[in-house]
Amino acid sequence: MLTASICTIGDEILIGQIVDTNSSLIAKELNKCGIKVNKMISIQDDESEIVSSLEECSHINDILIVTGGLGPTKDDMTKRSLAHLCRCDKYRYDASQASIIDELCSRRGIALSQLNRDQALVPECCRVLPNRMGTAPGMVFTLPAKGEKKVLLFSLPGVPYEMEHLLPSVIDTIKEEFVCENIYHRTLLTYGIPESLLASKIESWEDSLPKEVKLAYLPSPQSGVKLRISIYGGDISSSTLIAEEEVNKLKPLLGSALYGENEETLESVIGDYLLKNRKKISVAESCTSGKLSSLLTSIPGSSAYFTGGVVAYDNNIKMNILGVKEETLEKYGAVSCECVKEMAEGIKSLMNTDYAIATSGIAGPSGGTDTKPVGTICIAIAGPDFIETYVKVFNGDRIRNVQRFSAEALNLLRLKLDIQAI
Amino acid sequence: MLTASICTIGDEILIGQIVDTNSSLIAKELNKCGIKVNKMISIQDDESEIVSSLEECSHINDILIVTGGLGPTKDDMTKRSLAHLCRCDKYRYDASQASIIDELCSRRGIALSQLNRDQALVPECCRVLPNRMGTAPGMVFTLPAKGEKKVLLFSLPGVPYEMEHLLPSVIDTIKEEFVCENIYHRTLLTYGIPESLLASKIESWEDSLPKEVKLAYLPSPQSGVKLRISIYGGDISSSTLIAEEEVNKLKPLLGSALYGENEETLESVIGDYLLKNRKKISVAESCTSGKLSSLLTSIPGSSAYFTGGVVAYDNNIKMNILGVKEETLEKYGAVSCECVKEMAEGIKSLMNTDYAIATSGIAGPSGGTDTKPVGTICIAIAGPDFIETYVKVFNGDRIRNVQRFSAEALNLLRLKLDIQAI
Repeated sequence: MLTASICTIGDEILIGQIVDTNSSLIAKELNKCGIKVNKMISIQDDESEIVSSLEECSHINDILIVTGGLGPTKDDMTKRSLAHLCRCDKYRYDASQASIIDELCSRRGIALSQLNRDQALVPECCRVLPNRMGTAPGMVFTLPAKGEKKVLLFSLPGVPYEMEHLLPSVIDTIKEEFVCENIYHRTLLTYGIPESLLASKIESWEDSLPKEVKLAYLPSPQSGVKLRISIYGGDISSSTLIAEEEVNKLKPLLGSALYGENEETLESVIGDYLLKNRKKISVAESCTSGKLSSLLTSIPGSSAYFTGGVVAYDNNIKMNILGVKEETLEKYGAVSCECVKEMAEGIKSLMNTDYAIATSGIAGPSGGTDTKPVGTICIAIAGPDFIETYVKVFNGDRIRNVQRFSAEALNLLRLKLDIQAI
Repeated sequence: MLTASICTIGDEILIGQIVDTNSSLIAKELNKCGIKVNKMISIQDDESEIVSSLEECSHINDILIVTGGLGPTKDDMTKRSLAHLCRCDKYRYDASQASIIDELCSRRGIALSQLNRDQALVPECCRVLPNRMGTAPGMVFTLPAKGEKKVLLFSLPGVPYEMEHLLPSVIDTIKEEFVCENIYHRTLLTYGIPESLLASKIESWEDSLPKEVKLAYLPSPQSGVKLRISIYGGDISSSTLIAEEEVNKLKPLLGSALYGENEETLESVIGDYLLKNRKKISVAESCTSGKLSSLLTSIPGSSAYFTGGVVAYDNNIKMNILGVKEETLEKYGAVSCECVKEMAEGIKSLMNTDYAIATSGIAGPSGGTDTKPVGTICIAIAGPDFIETYVKVFNGDRIRNVQRFSAEALNLLRLKLDIQAI
């Protein structure tokens, strides 16, 4: 199997100023064509560091992808380091990139400086992948490796949209130069079973998996636990069959916790259901304060089924707009099943929808009591012929509690809608 | 200067399934107390890989921070690898973490499984940092290093909020074990001036900075450009004086773009103002769909000034609840200054608040036209004696556009409230 390392160069990542999103995107694309990424590193803009790190990676990999360190300013050492690594001390002007630089400068109304012009200067031994989005070209080097092994090194700009733009040429070049192995991935999405319980539920299934089938648990507070099944090598159709067989055994063990596969989310499966069934939904939020609306509308096209919502932070809004009764608030408090029930009834009738969700809880850090600690959430789910209420207690800070509350509410609705990926 | 490496363990990063945000956050915190991060690596959940990578990092660093690979399931090798690295083959149950696990399970109503119980099992040689947010404890190891050098290794859970929760204990432990150099940071927050323009505005100030004062530009689409002034070494009181002098020269150059300092945000400075002046606010959102409510209520105590909001996705809601006139929608469309003006008036009167914000725009990917392309946002800001409308066009995907729209709306309100950090 082909393997790769991804190396990001630049201090802005090491000081925590920016999050490296390039490596993840590159890994995803390499993975799709059967290349296993076994290491990602971020290092400083320092020649000896760059040379030694890349040399080390080249011993254990077929492909190295380097991003960053190609800016025109003097703190960028990448090009020189790569030339050094390839024992190439001659440079040439690359005509294709030079003309792009000309064009970019004139389009932006910038005088063409020597600094900019020199962006087209590349080590003689490399092949250029022209970068139409910026001044620094992509470069492909063949590293002097031991024995028969060939190591390809790609150097790409660090600006995410420039890198993204060059990524297809990188993949094409790899496919020309190597025979790629297949990798099969399938991810099952569950909500509501904690990781450890899930593990014991599916233990005997997991223990009897064919050895070529790898399983990974990917937990996240907002989307439950994902189970990723991977098969490396072999052909895709036989991997698909093997996985299908195992998934069919697994699904009954997951039961209603299984809500989707791969890139789906709680909000997308709910959206698909509402769209398909031509139903509408509205939300009345107290403590989740807009988060449920945000999630439901994060799906393009959600205006077809999401009518709107009321954020009723103040109790007067709960009464005056949603019709919660004063005595309900007095007797049970705002964080109560009685209150969210009336909120859900209120918003459903106000917005004339088929379904409604209402939330009221204590996100923290203050406001908790002995009987209703911080992390308590009351949720009501209303449908054409039902209304149900739930109380749950979570454990987190303000931001996290709101995320958990919202995910929980979406999952409760999903369960009521009987959306399962069985 | 103390140096550190950060190591992330787990296949989900290497296959590009998740972006590693932990490393960036850890680097930022280490940086604040004068520790330089010289390398970040992501590796597989594989014992020999973990041991060899960490061993290598330990030769060039004082501190290693490892995240991930601590889940109860079988794909997690970290604990075993660390025990191996420290040549410690005995384990013990940590009482503090065991009782947290007990409590978490009982609070969630989950039976305590052996897998969960074993999360409190740690190599004998480590010190535990109890994790109240999850079952896997943080662990501190002192690595057997050559000569006088001491190397501290921290193992933290990979789940971001659990890691975040443990980070202060990590920093405290480092400060106990090492003499950290003083490092002074002060960050000025600006909104509304693009980075390159800001750089030219303050160029002569920047050029005349004393050489011990370092300046960094930290741009972010949601919060404008932050300017971080750092002074490494020296004592804090003299650094404070030097910085104060430079900041006083800088502030007039930034003018009304300067909205706060350090950990403040647009929503926090607005919240402070409203709280202090005993004013209330409400929001009417179409395209931002709950994001403005979420931001305003992300501040603890925001219920004192945030009354609530209406998410009016459907035009009927704009008319029936907010009182937007049918002819306004017909003549100008929902994405118009006329519409957001009526939305702001409607919500302000409905919720009886002093201020109101209304938004309507096109987040994309579809819905754009020649005159109102994707990325167009109309915003109204209403106050006790004014109402103003604005149109802006941004360039991004759906999620990014909603973030930019919301930040822009908050900034426009801030400017109307004349909140400046001058």
